[in-house]
Amino acid sequence: MPAAARRNEQSRRAILDATLALLAETDYAKVTIEAIAARAGVGKQTIYRWWRRKGEVVLEALAEQAMPMALPDSGDLEADLRQVVRATVAEFGDPRLSATTRALTVEMLTDDDLAEQVRDRLLRPQLHAVRDRLAAAREQGQIRTGADLDLAVELMFGPVFHRWQLRNGPLDAEYADALADHVLAALRP
Amino acid sequence: MPAAARRNEQSRRAILDATLALLAETDYAKVTIEAIAARAGVGKQTIYRWWRRKGEVVLEALAEQAMPMALPDSGDLEADLRQVVRATVAEFGDPRLSATTRALTVEMLTDDDLAEQVRDRLLRPQLHAVRDRLAAAREQGQIRTGADLDLAVELMFGPVFHRWQLRNGPLDAEYADALADHVLAALRP
Repeated sequence: MPAAARRNEQSRRAILDATLALLAETDYAKVTIEAIAARAGVGKQTIYRWWRRKGEVVLEALAEQAMPMALPDSGDLEADLRQVVRATVAEFGDPRLSATTRALTVEMLTDDDLAEQVRDRLLRPQLHAVRDRLAAAREQGQIRTGADLDLAVELMFGPVFHRWQLRNGPLDAEYADALADHVLAALRP
Repeated sequence: MPAAARRNEQSRRAILDATLALLAETDYAKVTIEAIAARAGVGKQTIYRWWRRKGEVVLEALAEQAMPMALPDSGDLEADLRQVVRATVAEFGDPRLSATTRALTVEMLTDDDLAEQVRDRLLRPQLHAVRDRLAAAREQGQIRTGADLDLAVELMFGPVFHRWQLRNGPLDAEYADALADHVLAALRP
């Protein structure tokens, strides 16, 4: 890698690490471009060279942090789905993560381009991983042939999102397990 | 009703009617307090006497417009649920209604008090009407005893909300029917 490209990559990495560190420490509203630049030791212009706005930096930081998600495949579909739903419910129930999700959701609702990026880079890989796990289960006859797997994924995550957004009930493990059980009931042969 | 109270009620009604008329005609962003006041023939201060901000006026107008929702009860649970889900999907798929929902969602995510009002006044009556229909079906043995009816309602609406927000697939009658079928599969005895 030429020296200039290496310096660019170092700056980029520093900016994304600073963003994640700030997200973990403070409110989303305080994670400003200024704060990110100061923490990363770069100028604001360096950030604006690569990203239009804060939401895009946050998205990129979160997308790079997200594990290349492979769903648990213990052979026990019920246990695996419960694990995924529990993790999702815990994430939405966590005040700090929830605040970041809330802020990103607002940015998605007001910026179509960012919405596409969040969907394609942050969420789709996770949704597809779940669908792949369900496809494997269907091949093993644990899920009925006629089940719509994209819909099944929405059945798993849509209710959590709905409850979170409306604050319409607790986001706890008991809820997660009940949700996983109902989704499984919808899919069983 | 004393004359002053009657005038108040007339102004209030004019403001809410003007809000609904503007929502039907133009973009949410253009439905300003100024535009509502002009259309209703009142001063802006009259509006601010009763509501803090536009989102609250819109909410009240929508809440009063919403029918006291009674779900269809044809005896055919599948047909009834399909009807409800189709109507919901059509609403989210309609560009103008969708724009209003989008704007209200942003306001809910940034204003806890408004979020509670939207939930309690606009959404809960509708969600409870669906739950009541499901409770009747459960009494008739069409739904399994162990089904969680609040969760069932979330299974019906959460996926639509998720798909709408992520723009992750078509919002059409075929989707609505598939969703209703999967939810029913989750609930059957």
